[in-house]
Amino acid sequence: MKPLVSIIMGSTSDMPVMEAAAKFLDELEIPFEINALSAHRTPAEVEQFSRNAESRGIKVIIAAAGMAAHLPGVIASMTPLPVIGVPIKASLEGLDSLLAIVQMPPGIPVATVGINASLNAAILAAQMIALGDKKIAGSVKKYKDGLKKKIVAANEELAKITFQYKVG
Amino acid sequence: MKPLVSIIMGSTSDMPVMEAAAKFLDELEIPFEINALSAHRTPAEVEQFSRNAESRGIKVIIAAAGMAAHLPGVIASMTPLPVIGVPIKASLEGLDSLLAIVQMPPGIPVATVGINASLNAAILAAQMIALGDKKIAGSVKKYKDGLKKKIVAANEELAKITFQYKVG
Amino acid sequence: MKPLVSIIMGSTSDMPVMEAAAKFLDELEIPFEINALSAHRTPAEVEQFSRNAESRGIKVIIAAAGMAAHLPGVIASMTPLPVIGVPIKASLEGLDSLLAIVQMPPGIPVATVGINASLNAAILAAQMIALGDKKIAGSVKKYKDGLKKKIVAANEELAKITFQYKVG
Amino acid sequence: MKPLVSIIMGSTSDMPVMEAAAKFLDELEIPFEINALSAHRTPAEVEQFSRNAESRGIKVIIAAAGMAAHLPGVIASMTPLPVIGVPIKASLEGLDSLLAIVQMPPGIPVATVGINASLNAAILAAQMIALGDKKIAGSVKKYKDGLKKKIVAANEELAKITFQYKVG
Amino acid sequence: MKPLVSIIMGSTSDMPVMEAAAKFLDELEIPFEINALSAHRTPAEVEQFSRNAESRGIKVIIAAAGMAAHLPGVIASMTPLPVIGVPIKASLEGLDSLLAIVQMPPGIPVATVGINASLNAAILAAQMIALGDKKIAGSVKKYKDGLKKKIVAANEELAKITFQYKVG
Amino acid sequence: MKPLVSIIMGSTSDMPVMEAAAKFLDELEIPFEINALSAHRTPAEVEQFSRNAESRGIKVIIAAAGMAAHLPGVIASMTPLPVIGVPIKASLEGLDSLLAIVQMPPGIPVATVGINASLNAAILAAQMIALGDKKIAGSVKKYKDGLKKKIVAANEELAKITFQYKVG
Amino acid sequence: MKPLVSIIMGSTSDMPVMEAAAKFLDELEIPFEINALSAHRTPAEVEQFSRNAESRGIKVIIAAAGMAAHLPGVIASMTPLPVIGVPIKASLEGLDSLLAIVQMPPGIPVATVGINASLNAAILAAQMIALGDKKIAGSVKKYKDGLKKKIVAANEELAKITFQYKVG
Amino acid sequence: MKPLVSIIMGSTSDMPVMEAAAKFLDELEIPFEINALSAHRTPAEVEQFSRNAESRGIKVIIAAAGMAAHLPGVIASMTPLPVIGVPIKASLEGLDSLLAIVQMPPGIPVATVGINASLNAAILAAQMIALGDKKIAGSVKKYKDGLKKKIVAANEELAKITFQYKVG
Repeated sequence: MKPLVSIIMGSTSDMPVMEAAAKFLDELEIPFEINALSAHRTPAEVEQFSRNAESRGIKVIIAAAGMAAHLPGVIASMTPLPVIGVPIKASLEGLDSLLAIVQMPPGIPVATVGINASLNAAILAAQMIALGDKKIAGSVKKYKDGLKKKIVAANEELAKITFQYKVG
Repeated sequence: MKPLVSIIMGSTSDMPVMEAAAKFLDELEIPFEINALSAHRTPAEVEQFSRNAESRGIKVIIAAAGMAAHLPGVIASMTPLPVIGVPIKASLEGLDSLLAIVQMPPGIPVATVGINASLNAAILAAQMIALGDKKIAGSVKKYKDGLKKKIVAANEELAKITFQYKVG
Repeated sequence: MKPLVSIIMGSTSDMPVMEAAAKFLDELEIPFEINALSAHRTPAEVEQFSRNAESRGIKVIIAAAGMAAHLPGVIASMTPLPVIGVPIKASLEGLDSLLAIVQMPPGIPVATVGINASLNAAILAAQMIALGDKKIAGSVKKYKDGLKKKIVAANEELAKITFQYKVG
Repeated sequence: MKPLVSIIMGSTSDMPVMEAAAKFLDELEIPFEINALSAHRTPAEVEQFSRNAESRGIKVIIAAAGMAAHLPGVIASMTPLPVIGVPIKASLEGLDSLLAIVQMPPGIPVATVGINASLNAAILAAQMIALGDKKIAGSVKKYKDGLKKKIVAANEELAKITFQYKVG
Repeated sequence: MKPLVSIIMGSTSDMPVMEAAAKFLDELEIPFEINALSAHRTPAEVEQFSRNAESRGIKVIIAAAGMAAHLPGVIASMTPLPVIGVPIKASLEGLDSLLAIVQMPPGIPVATVGINASLNAAILAAQMIALGDKKIAGSVKKYKDGLKKKIVAANEELAKITFQYKVG
Repeated sequence: MKPLVSIIMGSTSDMPVMEAAAKFLDELEIPFEINALSAHRTPAEVEQFSRNAESRGIKVIIAAAGMAAHLPGVIASMTPLPVIGVPIKASLEGLDSLLAIVQMPPGIPVATVGINASLNAAILAAQMIALGDKKIAGSVKKYKDGLKKKIVAANEELAKITFQYKVG
Repeated sequence: MKPLVSIIMGSTSDMPVMEAAAKFLDELEIPFEINALSAHRTPAEVEQFSRNAESRGIKVIIAAAGMAAHLPGVIASMTPLPVIGVPIKASLEGLDSLLAIVQMPPGIPVATVGINASLNAAILAAQMIALGDKKIAGSVKKYKDGLKKKIVAANEELAKITFQYKVG
Repeated sequence: MKPLVSIIMGSTSDMPVMEAAAKFLDELEIPFEINALSAHRTPAEVEQFSRNAESRGIKVIIAAAGMAAHLPGVIASMTPLPVIGVPIKASLEGLDSLLAIVQMPPGIPVATVGINASLNAAILAAQMIALGDKKIAGSVKKYKDGLKKKIVAANEELAKITFQYKVG
C-alpha cells in the first residue's frame, strides 16, 4: 500500500489539529502518510521530500504550519503536485499564518483552507484524487450527502426546546 | 471540445482580474468556459450550474467573488468537484472576501488562493487535472520550470545598475 | 398559532447564543419558530425554507452563522422578507462572520446586528413587525422604556461604593 | 404626501453615497425625506427628530455616518422605529464606522448594512414597509426578480470574449 | 465638598476597570463622583448630566464605554468641558470601542486613552485640573516622580536572578 | 506674548495636517508656537523642550507623529503638562501611529485624538486652558455653538435636491 | 567578565517571556546583563544607559516592551549599537507593540523579532556578535544544526501513531 | 573588492523600494551586491546563495519580499549569518508581508524592519558590521549625528510660517 496523500506539519504540536484530516482519509480508505518537517529547521529534508513526492506516487500534499507559515509555499515551489495549506492558529488568532500561506506570489499557488481546518484539507485532497479515481469519487459524494443528516438530527433536538410562543 | 475548467465570476466587473486565469488555461491548451453567475442574484442558475457541472465533464470550478463572497462556498455545497475560490478586492483591501471564502465550515472546503490571484487559481486547476492527465502534467512542469527564467532575466537587469561600492 | 419570526441557525452549537432572541420573542408574545439549517450542508432545505417562508406567514427571518457565514445572505437571496443576520463568534473574534454577513452586494441586503447580538436581532424583528401591529408596537415601546431602569438600579449600587474623596 | 422613510446623514459630504438610496425609493414610489443632522454638532435637533419621527408617520429611518459613527445608534436610542445604519467610508477603509454602528449594546439594535451600501439600506427599508403594504411588497418582489437580468446580460458580454480553448 | 471630576460609565460591569481611576483621584485628594449612564438606554439623563456638568463645578469628565462606545462622544457634544474617553474591552479585543471613541468628527474631540486604561484617564484629568490648581499640580509631579521607583525596585529583583553568564 | 500651546510635529511633512490646529488657535487668539522635533533624531532637543515647557509658561502640548509614533509619549514622560497626541496617517491607514500613541502604559497618559485630527487636538487644548481662563472658555462655547450652523446650511442645500417622491 | 549583550525590559512582568533569551545566551556562554528600564517612567536612566552602552563594551541591546512599545526605539535613537526589539503581547494580541517597534522612521532602525519571540532575539544577538567572534560563530552554527534534531525526534513520535490507512 | 552586504529581492519590481538601501551602503563605502532571487521560483538558487554567502565573505544579508514573503525566512534557515527582512507593500497595506517575515518560529530569527523601510535595513546592516569594523563604526555614528540637522533645518522653515498668534 503506497500513500496517495502526504500530510506534513511544521511541528508535532500541530498533531491535535491535524488528526481530523487523518481520520477522514482513514474513513475514506485513502492511503496516507504523516510527517513533521520544518521549512526553517529541516530545509534539506523539505527539499528532498518535495522533489521526490511525485515519483513516490503521492498525488496531493497537505501542509500545515503556524505563524510565518512558509512550509506549504516552500513545498509548492519544489513540486508540480497540488499543495493544500492549513493555517495553524498559534498567534494573532491565526491571521498571520493564513496570510503567510494564502498570499502566494503569481506562479506558485497553495490551495488554502480555513484556520485549523484540517478536515476540509483532507476533503479537498479526496476531491482532487477523485478526479481520476471512481471509487474515491463515490466516497466523496457519499460523505457530502451525509452532511445534511447532522443538521436534520440537530433540528430534532431544537424541536424539543419549548417556549410558550415557540411554534413547532 | 468540452470544457474541463469552469470559471465563474460574481460580476462581469471581475473580468479584468480573471483574464489571467483564462490566458493561462489557453496557454496550456486546457478547454474552459467563463460565465457570470451571482450567488445572490441568480441562486437558481447557480444551483443548476453546480448540480450539473460534473455530469457535463467539468473537472474543476474556479469561482471569483468580492465583499461577502458567497459564490465559491455556495457552489462547493452543491457539487462534489473541487472548487477554487478567488477573493476579489472590492472593499476593505479584499480582506472581507478572503475571509468569506476561506473560512468555510467543516465539510465544505473551498481551495482559496490569494486576493485577486486568478493566475494561481488557474495553475492550481491545471495541477489538479494533471493528476489524471499526463499531457497537462507535462505542461504544468514546463510552466513551473519557466518561472525561474524571469528571475534570471531580472538579475541581468540588476547587474546593469551601478553604484561605486556595488560589486558585480 | 402561526409563527411570525423564524430563527435559523447554521449549527445547533449556536443555540446558547440564540437563546436570548427566543426569550425576548416569548416575552413579547410574538410567535416564532427555531430551526437549524446550513447554507452549505442542506442547501436544498435552505432554498425550500426561503422560498416558502413568506407564504407560511413568516414576517421576518433571523439567521445566525459563524466563520464564512453565508446563511443569512443565501436566505436573503431567495425571499422578499427582511432578513436579520447575527454573526456568531467562532474564530477571528467574530470578525470573519461579521464581514461575511454585512458586506452583501448591491441588491440583497442583510440587516446585520453585532457579534453574538441575538437579543438585538429579536428586538429589531419586533420593531419591524410593530410597523403593522399596534399591540407589538406597544410592547416594543414598553421594552425600550424599561431599559433605563437597569441603569438607575446600577447607579444605586455605585452610590454605595465609598472613597474618601468620592462625592455622592 | 407624507414621507414613510427618513434618510439622515451626518454630513452633506455623504450625499453622493446616499443618492442610490434616494433613487431606489423614488423608483419604488415610496415617499421619503432627506436631511443632514449630526449626532455631535446638532444633538438637540437629532433628539427632536428622533422623538417625533413615529408620530410624523415615518416608518423606517436610514442613518448614515462615518468614522466614530454615532448617529444611527443615537437615533435608535430615542425612537421605537427600526433604524438602518449605513457606515460611510471616511477613514480606515470604513472599518471604524462599521464597528461604531453595528456593535450596539444589548437593547438598542441598529440594522447595519455594508460600507457605503446605501442602496441596500433603501431595499431593506422597502422590505420592512412591505410587511404592511401590499403594493410596496409587490414592487420589492419585482425588483428582486430583476436582479438576475443584469447577470444574464453580463453573461452575453462574456460570451463574446474569445480564447482558442474557450468553449461557448 | 463639590466634585471636580465626574466618572461616567456605560454599565456597572465596567466598575472593576474604572476602580483604578477612582483610587488615583482619591489618592490625589481630588473630589470626584461616579455614575452609570448609558448613551443608548438613558439618553435624557445623559443630556441633563452633560448640559449641567459645568455649572455644577465639574472640570473634567471621564467617560468609559465598550463596543460601539458612543457615551464619551455624546457627552462631548453637549458640554464645553474636556471629556476623556476610556475604551472598555468587551469584544474584538477592545478595538471597536477604541475606534468608536477616538475617531470623532472635526469639532467634537474626545481625549482618548488606551483600552481599559482608567488610571491614565484619571492622571490626565489631574493634569488638566493642575493647569489652574497649584496643589494638584504638585501632586501630579510627585506622582510622576514616583513612577521610576517601581522600576528601580524591579531592577533589584532582576539582580537576584542568576545565570552562569549573567553579569551583575 | 508668551505661547500657551506648543505644537510639536515629528517631521515638517506633517505641517499640512497640523495647519488646522494652528488656524483654530489663531482664531481663538490663543498664543502658540510650532516646532519640529523628532523623538528619534533629536532626542536631546525633545528632552530639553519637555523639561522646560512648563517653566516657559506652556499649558498644553500637542504632539503629532506617524508610524511608530513615539514623540507624544516620550514628551509625556518628561513633563507634568497634559500632552495631546495626533496620529499622522503615513502607513497602514494610520492604525500603527494611533496604537503607538494611545496604548501608553499605566502612569503616562497621552490624550489621543483621531487619525490626522489636528483640529480636534487644538479644540481639546483650548478646552483644557479654558478650565482656568474665562475668556477662552467663552470662545470655546461660541465655537461649539457655531458647529450646528454648518449642518443647518447643509440641510438647506439638501432641500434643493428634488426627486419625485422626495418630500420637503 | 564584561557583558556583551544587554537585555532591557520595560517591566519585570516581561521576565517570564524574556527568560528564553537569557537561557540561550547562557547556553552559548555569551556574557549578558538584564535590567528593567522604562522609556516612560525612567527616561533619564534610559538615556544614560543608551549613551554609555557602547563604551561599557556592550555589542548588542535587546529591548522588550508591550503596548505602545517605545523602549527599543528610544534606545536606538541614542546609541550606535544595533538594537533588537521584542514586542510583548499585553493587549490587542501584541499587534500594538509589534507596530510600535517595527514601524520606525527612516534613520533609526530597530531589528524586530516576532511577538514574545525572545529566543529569536537572543539568537539574532549571537549572530551579530559572531560576525567578529569565531568561537561564538561556531556555537551559532552548532545551535542551528541542532534544530533539525527536534524535528527528527518529532517524526519518530508521529511514526508511532497508527491508522488503518496510514503508511509508515 | 568583495561585497560585505548582499541585498536580495524577490522581484525586480522591488528595486525602487530597495534603492535607498543601495545608496546608503554606497555613501558609507560598504561594498555590496544586489540580486533578485525568489524563494518560490528559484529555490535551488536561493539555497546555493544561502549556503555559500558566509564563505564568500558576506557579513549580513538584506532580503526584501512582498505578500506571503518567505524569502528572508528561507534564507535565514540556511545560513548562520544575520538576515534582515524588508516587508514590501504589495497588498493589504503590507501587513501580510510584515507578518510573514517577522513571525518566524523559534530558532530562525529574521531581523525585521518596517514596511518598505529599506534604508533602515541598510543602516542596521552597517551597525552590525560596525561591531567588528572601526571605520564603519565611525561612519554610522556620523550618519546618526547628521539626522538631527534635517530637523533643525525643518524648524527654520516652520519659523517662517506666520499666524497672528504664533510666537517665534
